[in-house]
Amino acid sequence: MPSIQPAELWQESERWNQYGPELLRIQDRHDREFCYGPTHEEVITDLVRREIRSYKQLPINFYQIQTKFRDEIRPRFGVMRAREFSMKDAYSFHTTKESLEETYQVMYDTYSNIFNRLGLEFRAVEADTGSIGGNASHEFHVLAESGEDAIAFSSHGSYAANVELAPTSPTEQCNESPAQALEKIATPNQHSIEEVCKFLNISAQQVAKTLIVKSDNPEEDNPLIALVLRGDHELNAVKAQKLEGVANPLEFASESEIEKSLGCKIGSIGPLQLKCPILIDHAALALTNFACGANQDGFHYQGVNWKRDASKIKEPRSVDLRKIVEGDPSPDGNGTIQIKRGIEVGHIFQLGDKYSQALKASVLGADGKEQIITMGCYGIGVTRVVAAAIEQNFDEQGIIWPSSIAPFDISLIPINLKKSDQVKATCEQMYTDLQNRGLEVLFDDRDQRAGLLFADHELIGTPHRIVVSERGLENSEIEYKGRQDTEAQKIPMTKILDFLQNKITRN
Amino acid sequence: MPSIQPAELWQESERWNQYGPELLRIQDRHDREFCYGPTHEEVITDLVRREIRSYKQLPINFYQIQTKFRDEIRPRFGVMRAREFSMKDAYSFHTTKESLEETYQVMYDTYSNIFNRLGLEFRAVEADTGSIGGNASHEFHVLAESGEDAIAFSSHGSYAANVELAPTSPTEQCNESPAQALEKIATPNQHSIEEVCKFLNISAQQVAKTLIVKSDNPEEDNPLIALVLRGDHELNAVKAQKLEGVANPLEFASESEIEKSLGCKIGSIGPLQLKCPILIDHAALALTNFACGANQDGFHYQGVNWKRDASKIKEPRSVDLRKIVEGDPSPDGNGTIQIKRGIEVGHIFQLGDKYSQALKASVLGADGKEQIITMGCYGIGVTRVVAAAIEQNFDEQGIIWPSSIAPFDISLIPINLKKSDQVKATCEQMYTDLQNRGLEVLFDDRDQRAGLLFADHELIGTPHRIVVSERGLENSEIEYKGRQDTEAQKIPMTKILDFLQNKITRN
Repeated sequence: MPSIQPAELWQESERWNQYGPELLRIQDRHDREFCYGPTHEEVITDLVRREIRSYKQLPINFYQIQTKFRDEIRPRFGVMRAREFSMKDAYSFHTTKESLEETYQVMYDTYSNIFNRLGLEFRAVEADTGSIGGNASHEFHVLAESGEDAIAFSSHGSYAANVELAPTSPTEQCNESPAQALEKIATPNQHSIEEVCKFLNISAQQVAKTLIVKSDNPEEDNPLIALVLRGDHELNAVKAQKLEGVANPLEFASESEIEKSLGCKIGSIGPLQLKCPILIDHAALALTNFACGANQDGFHYQGVNWKRDASKIKEPRSVDLRKIVEGDPSPDGNGTIQIKRGIEVGHIFQLGDKYSQALKASVLGADGKEQIITMGCYGIGVTRVVAAAIEQNFDEQGIIWPSSIAPFDISLIPINLKKSDQVKATCEQMYTDLQNRGLEVLFDDRDQRAGLLFADHELIGTPHRIVVSERGLENSEIEYKGRQDTEAQKIPMTKILDFLQNKITRN
Repeated sequence: MPSIQPAELWQESERWNQYGPELLRIQDRHDREFCYGPTHEEVITDLVRREIRSYKQLPINFYQIQTKFRDEIRPRFGVMRAREFSMKDAYSFHTTKESLEETYQVMYDTYSNIFNRLGLEFRAVEADTGSIGGNASHEFHVLAESGEDAIAFSSHGSYAANVELAPTSPTEQCNESPAQALEKIATPNQHSIEEVCKFLNISAQQVAKTLIVKSDNPEEDNPLIALVLRGDHELNAVKAQKLEGVANPLEFASESEIEKSLGCKIGSIGPLQLKCPILIDHAALALTNFACGANQDGFHYQGVNWKRDASKIKEPRSVDLRKIVEGDPSPDGNGTIQIKRGIEVGHIFQLGDKYSQALKASVLGADGKEQIITMGCYGIGVTRVVAAAIEQNFDEQGIIWPSSIAPFDISLIPINLKKSDQVKATCEQMYTDLQNRGLEVLFDDRDQRAGLLFADHELIGTPHRIVVSERGLENSEIEYKGRQDTEAQKIPMTKILDFLQNKITRN
């Protein structure tokens, strides 16, 4: 498929406007509009609507390996988040939801097989569908401390989801202590949750914090919405922007907008008597005798109780707003949540009819009627897989390649290549013999001292290393060392080829 | 290397301004300027100036296979001249001209080997260096009637060059007939060479035609230059724009500019008394007793003789301006020129120091002094090779793939696959057996009649076809037909695997 795509297709799917500044927009010499494809749903749907006519031709699945471009605001971590990267992307087309689900499962299993074969420790997790859209999706994450994503796992059971997606449940109110009286307290110059807690000598778990964001209707009298969370919880922006009334993508109100609409500074905002609609996170709603801003600069309430003080709240709704945290009950009811860091290397989607409906991609059904096609899509970040493999497999000396993606199987290192005809002849023979057995050999014929050669090959991370030296040849021995071995071993020359082939086949 | 390249590098080489509208220019979200790489001299030179420090690291040759984009004003002929295409490009770096020439010869031989192995009828020809630049270059052309380029070959000897480049030699004046008197003749409403020749009853070989182009200094009093050719010859724009004083790229003067500067319409322009510098093609200069425009609307001269009438010509220069034609003497002195059509599939260049000088790419030499690197570059149009192979190898039924680039070696076609268990079992066994021998098989398991399957596979162009039918199996035979065979043949089942493997290895 082309990397440069016509704007017309993106206008048909309405993503030309929705995709935002990550879409690199281009004008050609005739001033026609194009973009550098960050993904290819529009292009493949256009091809299919032109070429596929009958239900008999479905299901079908197309793939390519191609360069994509996403104009990241902050490209970073080398190829981990580069603007230009290589992706394997596939798109499947179906007459029914069941057929899509069947192919989706095949792709799920195939991706699992691929990442297993790549030797990576990974997890498939439920995921948000983001700007691609659709009904259901899974991400494949390589687990690594340096990962940009947080993954929620259940301690028991199989639940695993991106923290962006993982839901939290309503919590029972803790009614152990009797209701305190509602009290307004002067909190001069105490703005952040941390400052207020220290000043009032309470924990963040006893505070309701209020964030002000824009509504999805800026034309309204009050274009703002309040989001209330327990003081120690973090807002989950992906959940928030999907809620009715909230602007998508999520946008925080500016300080001046808050002061103008709500009459006080952000540091003293609270849910009671607030002049805008309020969405309260389940955990915040479980609070009793808590503190919050009093909507008056320099004042907070203490001893707030939702039920008693409810009349002071405008249009409250109880919703799921926060990021799940370690120790939360698992959404599937099995055990509690643990969080790990992950690097997203694959993502599969049940798209449904989002693109086929917009682009009017239909086939003639068995009943003779036109029907809209059902779609799935499936991507692997090829470039990022390489970076993720390194993040998961390294030591102080350098890379430790999983054997399936090592650029070479074996480093062949001579000692005194230039001085010893015997070393040279043996190396050249071994180089040929190993290659004839289908093994990939990096023969380092640079005129450098052995220590430097060893260090370079540990840095490069070739899984197996053999050293040919005059001293070894006197004993008819070759030195072998695996990348992760602590000691080298001597292998008789007559056995070295079989020895290496067994090592590499076993992996 | 990246497909999206920073403008800064192209500004350093000065190609940001020189490359023209084929360079797709792009602004990112931060309004920084980039282009979609049409070629990668700047990027690789930037990498090398950062990474290569010493003459000891040279020569070195880097290559990639990547998508390029050239914003062609008229993309056409499918992938033959698409704006987006796949290219194999290599760049070599040297300390001396001799080292470059050595690598250039290796690449020349390698390219020849590649195109031979692809089974293509091709010629390597001397070529213009165009917007890539440098000292010397060769193009590799697949010969085909539909080719966009014209190639000049010598009938004897080895000379071959793109017509754009092939030089023509000065011709002796033919002085057989005595000089006629110079005569001004009214030629009302006769503008084109064809009209004037018909009106005067002479051949185009007896006329000097005058073209008016812009000079390279538009600030001059007279910013135009005249190019004079024999009436039957065509201007070679590539030669013309390299001449001193001529704008590069070549630009024709408009009718109004001509009338304003020269005082008459284009149809009556001629070299005598013309008020701008004049470049005369060697062949035009050999004319005697010829006709030309009289620089007065509706009049031409006849009986013109250069030497006698030279005083009437302003700043004449004798130059090589025309396209070589069939029958011209070969530039290498061996025989005469023949012209064939070619499709350019490869191009190699001795770049010299064009890019390394501009980007200050140097290494420390053996003498301890910094020296500018010498470069070569080498490209194969991967996408176009496929199209060229088809243009050269087809018949009424469809494509005839050269075996080295056929998508599949063998089409395996069952008769009544759905009805005969025996046909099905045999096909599946053969599919496995052939693949185990390393052969690529297209097993057509569609439920369609045999005639349609045969036609589809001839269209696709698979080099070998086998047919499995119940009738054949009764006699323990498989039907075989090569794509270009007129008759199918029966092969005993026991011999079919070896038979096919021999066929395919032989090719």
